[in-house]
Amino acid sequence: MTVRPRRFGELTPPPRLLFGTGPTNPDPRVLRALGLPLLGQFDPAFAEIMNEVSDLCRFVFRTENARAFPVSGTSRAGLEAGLCSLLEPGDRVVVGVAGRFGELLAEISARCGAGVTPVPTEWGRVIDPDAFGAAVRRARPKVVALVHGDTSTGILQPLPDLVRIAHEHGAVVLVDAVLTVGGTELEVDRWALDVCVGGTQKCLGCPPGMAPITYTPEVERLILGRRRPPQSNYLDLAQIEAYWGPDRLNHHTLPTSMTYGLREALRLIYEEGLEPRWARHRRAGAALHAGLEAMGLRLFGDPAHRLPMLAIVEVPEGISESGIRDALLRKHTIEIMGAFGALRGRAWRVGFMAYNAEVHNVLQFLAAFEDVLSEAGLRLPPRAGVEAAARVAG
Amino acid sequence: MTVRPRRFGELTPPPRLLFGTGPTNPDPRVLRALGLPLLGQFDPAFAEIMNEVSDLCRFVFRTENARAFPVSGTSRAGLEAGLCSLLEPGDRVVVGVAGRFGELLAEISARCGAGVTPVPTEWGRVIDPDAFGAAVRRARPKVVALVHGDTSTGILQPLPDLVRIAHEHGAVVLVDAVLTVGGTELEVDRWALDVCVGGTQKCLGCPPGMAPITYTPEVERLILGRRRPPQSNYLDLAQIEAYWGPDRLNHHTLPTSMTYGLREALRLIYEEGLEPRWARHRRAGAALHAGLEAMGLRLFGDPAHRLPMLAIVEVPEGISESGIRDALLRKHTIEIMGAFGALRGRAWRVGFMAYNAEVHNVLQFLAAFEDVLSEAGLRLPPRAGVEAAARVAG
Repeated sequence: MTVRPRRFGELTPPPRLLFGTGPTNPDPRVLRALGLPLLGQFDPAFAEIMNEVSDLCRFVFRTENARAFPVSGTSRAGLEAGLCSLLEPGDRVVVGVAGRFGELLAEISARCGAGVTPVPTEWGRVIDPDAFGAAVRRARPKVVALVHGDTSTGILQPLPDLVRIAHEHGAVVLVDAVLTVGGTELEVDRWALDVCVGGTQKCLGCPPGMAPITYTPEVERLILGRRRPPQSNYLDLAQIEAYWGPDRLNHHTLPTSMTYGLREALRLIYEEGLEPRWARHRRAGAALHAGLEAMGLRLFGDPAHRLPMLAIVEVPEGISESGIRDALLRKHTIEIMGAFGALRGRAWRVGFMAYNAEVHNVLQFLAAFEDVLSEAGLRLPPRAGVEAAARVAG
Repeated sequence: MTVRPRRFGELTPPPRLLFGTGPTNPDPRVLRALGLPLLGQFDPAFAEIMNEVSDLCRFVFRTENARAFPVSGTSRAGLEAGLCSLLEPGDRVVVGVAGRFGELLAEISARCGAGVTPVPTEWGRVIDPDAFGAAVRRARPKVVALVHGDTSTGILQPLPDLVRIAHEHGAVVLVDAVLTVGGTELEVDRWALDVCVGGTQKCLGCPPGMAPITYTPEVERLILGRRRPPQSNYLDLAQIEAYWGPDRLNHHTLPTSMTYGLREALRLIYEEGLEPRWARHRRAGAALHAGLEAMGLRLFGDPAHRLPMLAIVEVPEGISESGIRDALLRKHTIEIMGAFGALRGRAWRVGFMAYNAEVHNVLQFLAAFEDVLSEAGLRLPPRAGVEAAARVAG
């Protein structure tokens, strides 16, 4: 025996309100779908489910692309699938680096052997189109990689101008919409995004484990026409699309239960409609922002480009960042998150996404936040946050 | 609107007995665990679950390795994580290629830029230690990659002799135990396997979506000491182990629900015990093999090295391979699988794994198989299969 005899008890996750940047609490319907009996991957009934998931991916991405399906890994697997399937050693990439997830796109691209030109941008600001245009003109890249909404900075990057510049110089645009898909306006076809990657555990409201991706016929030609296959077999879109396509060529075994959960999460979005869902996220986010500001707290980043579904809250002088998170979790069963990089220890990240993007959750959070901040010694105007938020929400 | 208005109904997977080569029907306890409420990935309660999953991985692999955790992708993601984290361009690999999954190991290794020396072996036979030794002496590889149980051929590869030869020549041994872990004897420490990769959807009895892996401190040194990181960020074991280790360095977001399901599947194995579980698979498999032979059907491959949990059944003259599979599915809700490569259209693959490795399932299958084969015009001794299987099972 290699493990000391011990007891592995019944799995009983404690109750949690997941008000960080993901995973979020899924709708109970999604949790129920996860537990349904399995089908084999080549069962005709499962093939139909795969087709429905593809259709629903097209729906949330707003695209007519033939290629739309989830990659069988978490968000960064989807981003890597897009980049490693497109990039060959020596190719050039321009990456907008305005937060941690821009850094990730640059790192993945460099590992593919590409020459990476970052467009560095101060955290909390959007990418300057002039600096971006200059970088694209100089580098003449094959691929431009951009983050739509970066949870590390709380900033929503406007895309159409940057896409136009990239296209004027013949580059293919890959967009990280991991956070934004299903939560705020995202228009793959209208904005002419060439590759777009989403995540399941944020505004789609599904557990983590898959990453919806879509790409144009032009990108498909690039992927199928490369000189050598990418290093990865698992994340090779040429192979994955042949599995999702009508030929159903054997590749990996699709994660059955996750596919069920994703279908149900996407079906909920289809029933709600995209515009009403975006409005729901905007409403909850407006209440959150108003409430936090009424409490006298400072929100990080350019207010003109704030993400609607989350807030980066600066930690007031004399308050312990991790102490407040611990108190919220212990006393109120609420999870929020710390921050990355230069913001580590200096900011909290708070988000209301998918099933959780409701004003009542925002009010519950603000009341609890006021409680633990007050307990930690911060002087706050009593109930100012909750009242302002409720007022904004109407 | 990019999708024609259509209806996406309630998800209602039809009933299925999954008697192919995976996924198999999980124990209802595993399905229940999948639907439990989520925790954040850095929640102390989730960290404890991760530690338990690591301990349980050590238990099923029979190892004391510090590194034992699931990779967040299906089996081939685990295999690729092992290979791409070890191999640098120009490294040499010897791969035992005795079936489709040996071919896969060779393909993944080649994509990593390694020089691959295959040890080609006729399907249905085990690898010849002399031919293997000659290849290792000639190639002096950094890595030797072997498949323990290959579902394409039904053969169980004895490992200890090959491992000894590889070690005599200084190679690291990576073993694909995707099929075998939890279903038949597998001894990572006693057999001195350097890297071992399992799959969740076969003898572990969990849905597909993760791939348990373990490796020795020596392998860890190789992974951490390489000149350049591997192309893949998502499958870079150096990063993944830092996430699973005590520092919990942020990497991808762990698939929460799959982690719950895997924990429950492994907990079931811990409760049952490995030897009783292997015996259960042997008992069901012996009944299967006896029943099929009593029906006058021919099993593919060397009888001395047959996998205990499955059978490759040759299609009798005049019978349609796919026709029988369709009839089993339609009439009896039973899924079995076709075969790969030269066996395509010429064999069925039938397996009884994890929750399904029970004699009653074998009897149910044999009765249904007799029915559809008889209906297709094959003359069979009535009830011979069921009777022989029941007799063997005692």
